[in-house]
Amino acid sequence: MTKKAIILLSGGLDSTTVLVLAKKQGYRLFTLSFDYGQRHRVELECACRISKVFDAEEHREVKVDLKQFGGSALTDSIDVPTHRSVADMSHEIPVTYVPARNTLFLSYALAYAEVVGSEDLFLGVNALDYSGYPDCRPEYIEAFEKTANLGTKAGVEGRSRFTIHTPLIQMTKAQIIKQGMELGLDYGLTHSCYNPNEEGMACGVCDSCLLRKKGFQEAGFFDPLLYQVNS
Amino acid sequence: MTKKAIILLSGGLDSTTVLVLAKKQGYRLFTLSFDYGQRHRVELECACRISKVFDAEEHREVKVDLKQFGGSALTDSIDVPTHRSVADMSHEIPVTYVPARNTLFLSYALAYAEVVGSEDLFLGVNALDYSGYPDCRPEYIEAFEKTANLGTKAGVEGRSRFTIHTPLIQMTKAQIIKQGMELGLDYGLTHSCYNPNEEGMACGVCDSCLLRKKGFQEAGFFDPLLYQVNS
Repeated sequence: MTKKAIILLSGGLDSTTVLVLAKKQGYRLFTLSFDYGQRHRVELECACRISKVFDAEEHREVKVDLKQFGGSALTDSIDVPTHRSVADMSHEIPVTYVPARNTLFLSYALAYAEVVGSEDLFLGVNALDYSGYPDCRPEYIEAFEKTANLGTKAGVEGRSRFTIHTPLIQMTKAQIIKQGMELGLDYGLTHSCYNPNEEGMACGVCDSCLLRKKGFQEAGFFDPLLYQVNS
Repeated sequence: MTKKAIILLSGGLDSTTVLVLAKKQGYRLFTLSFDYGQRHRVELECACRISKVFDAEEHREVKVDLKQFGGSALTDSIDVPTHRSVADMSHEIPVTYVPARNTLFLSYALAYAEVVGSEDLFLGVNALDYSGYPDCRPEYIEAFEKTANLGTKAGVEGRSRFTIHTPLIQMTKAQIIKQGMELGLDYGLTHSCYNPNEEGMACGVCDSCLLRKKGFQEAGFFDPLLYQVNS
């Protein structure tokens, strides 16, 4: 029987590439998205569409109550930074950091995995190109994996050995895009902007847009996404 | 400045004892409860009342979407076991196990801690009296603590060193009750039943009620709670 994969799917470039990689490896896909009060809700619509396009067996959208804690530009009334150089981005943990986000998301993914009988969790984190987030580093992923295996019935009973797959963790944005293009992924399905307008159109100037554009440029491909600001 | 403690407060006997211990140690209290679709919602009312009684600075109730995953007698239409002997309880992981529950709860607590500037998380887990849950064991707690310090901005920047306090982890139910009584805790404020009736009255026959009753008996105190079945 083919193995089941839980894909943490934001609808962005990275997690969608991860989904395509898992599909290529023959996994049955169970996608999980989070509605955490983010400003960029268009991501959730993308995640839903992508799940359908790639024949996920299930797509779950979990409401996560992070907004009441606050503390991040992605959920709070803090301004999302724009027009930064990519060099600047890697110097400090950005205000778009959401407290304990990946720990929380992985916990939900773990619960989901245990219930559907999956032992493979796929996460599109990246430690190279945008190293500001502490919960995107290999040592963090390793610690969570250990926690997962100690803290679950399936792990303790030896029925499952949970693995957190992070195939993009050491890749640059350009390498990720090349990988996806080789697998035939249409990046027009994906969306990564932190601050889209009401029609869901990407701003073109937030960190996420700038990294995406630079990635396409370096990879030598056209980005199929339309931006409000294209320079 | 007095340190802030995040108390994971279910409104049950254990977590309320932990709250009183933290208060005794001089911490400022920030209580956190979870509405995870549990059958026993009376717990949430207790948690709110207890937070007021002990002057918590904040009490937050977070809605957690576990019901949609299912897989537990506490959130699903699986029957809660009753009339079991305490010896039987410790032999296997019970159906009241909720997948990845403590990992999820601790993740929220961590986010909350990071936002309010606390580095002390208090959790009323117990590995002795009811050893069925994998996420109540010291090795699990240690793994989560490591994850917390690797996966947060505060941890990585060295501003905080998160500690998961589990003062009850090696205590029997009777020892916990004795401890609380010594600190003047009125256990009539607490509630632990997995399957209360519509008025919120404890059943008296689920694992949690049986353990509580046995604990009071062994500690030599009267349990101020009224049960539907008292034998």
